[in-house]
Amino acid sequence: MSSTPLLILASNSPRRQELLKLSGFDFEVFVDEIDESFPSDLDVHAVAVYLAKKKNKYYRLLKPSSLILTADTTVVLDGQVINKPESPEHAKEMLKRLSAATHKVVSGVCISSPKKTVSFTAITDVTFAYISEEEILDYIQAYQPFDKAGSYGIQEWIGFTKVVGIKGSFYNVMGLPTQPVYEALKIEFNYLPKINLQTP
Amino acid sequence: MSSTPLLILASNSPRRQELLKLSGFDFEVFVDEIDESFPSDLDVHAVAVYLAKKKNKYYRLLKPSSLILTADTTVVLDGQVINKPESPEHAKEMLKRLSAATHKVVSGVCISSPKKTVSFTAITDVTFAYISEEEILDYIQAYQPFDKAGSYGIQEWIGFTKVVGIKGSFYNVMGLPTQPVYEALKIEFNYLPKINLQTP
Repeated sequence: MSSTPLLILASNSPRRQELLKLSGFDFEVFVDEIDESFPSDLDVHAVAVYLAKKKNKYYRLLKPSSLILTADTTVVLDGQVINKPESPEHAKEMLKRLSAATHKVVSGVCISSPKKTVSFTAITDVTFAYISEEEILDYIQAYQPFDKAGSYGIQEWIGFTKVVGIKGSFYNVMGLPTQPVYEALKIEFNYLPKINLQTP
Repeated sequence: MSSTPLLILASNSPRRQELLKLSGFDFEVFVDEIDESFPSDLDVHAVAVYLAKKKNKYYRLLKPSSLILTADTTVVLDGQVINKPESPEHAKEMLKRLSAATHKVVSGVCISSPKKTVSFTAITDVTFAYISEEEILDYIQAYQPFDKAGSYGIQEWIGFTKVVGIKGSFYNVMGLPTQPVYEALKIEFNYLPKINLQTP
């Protein structure tokens, strides 16, 4: 038996839940409505970890004896944070901006127990090939990427056919930088994984 | 209807088949026994494309009117090609060498029609964190990575928990550099994909 209580993943993202499971950890999901605003003068690369820490503090009040993992993932292009699209037209604009360019996927992670808090940022550069307007419209219609920052999933058709390359963690682009999460849970919180798991 | 015949993927790799399907292409798999030897004085980074071209020439004789895709993936560490492991002990040695180091995954791809042949190489740098002997033994026992060059799958537990980052194409590490394959099939061979597909 682990010396710590069951981990709480405070995230609705099915991708994040899948990645934490595939890393070998048992956990339960608990999510509440939360204010995701941030100071407008914050450096764009610091927004994700600011939000992860803010969410973690909030959940700590609700679950004071738990081990809690919070995360936030943002897309940064030309010094601007790009959020989830609000409409098909908005998704089209975003994908046109990402086409033939390199953007950054920035995740912030915060893990806390009653005694200790650890937080970190992971950044991955993602380079897209040129995406034609036809390909953009076909993708938006087929995949409806409205729950995704930047309007795309790297594990979807557009990731296979249009991502030239990345620099950094692939799973960070999917929503959770699994390697440092694994090390932090294991080393900092003595929260041990099981290994015998299948592929996605 | 496409202006070219149905694509033949000449590879037994289930990962390669999955990646080509997820990129949106229809194809059939055809595989024959083939000699995979290569000249010992070949540059280590040229082995994969040499084998892809050699296999393609062989399959062209068997299927002269077809569109044929062949590929080969090698792992290169410290200037040496690392193959599939021959035993659990051999897999353990390989993973110890990959631990806390950066290696290259080199894929060669060759696509040919009766009129034209296109070939290219894709290289991805993969950096592993330190992997303990216990983690290596647990992974080998759980995943039996004996069909994989370098003894690991990046889409498996060890990829989630131990790959710090990559530089280049992620899907290349899984066995097929999908982005240039997509562009080559579409642009060079007018072989068109469907888009409406699901995630892995």
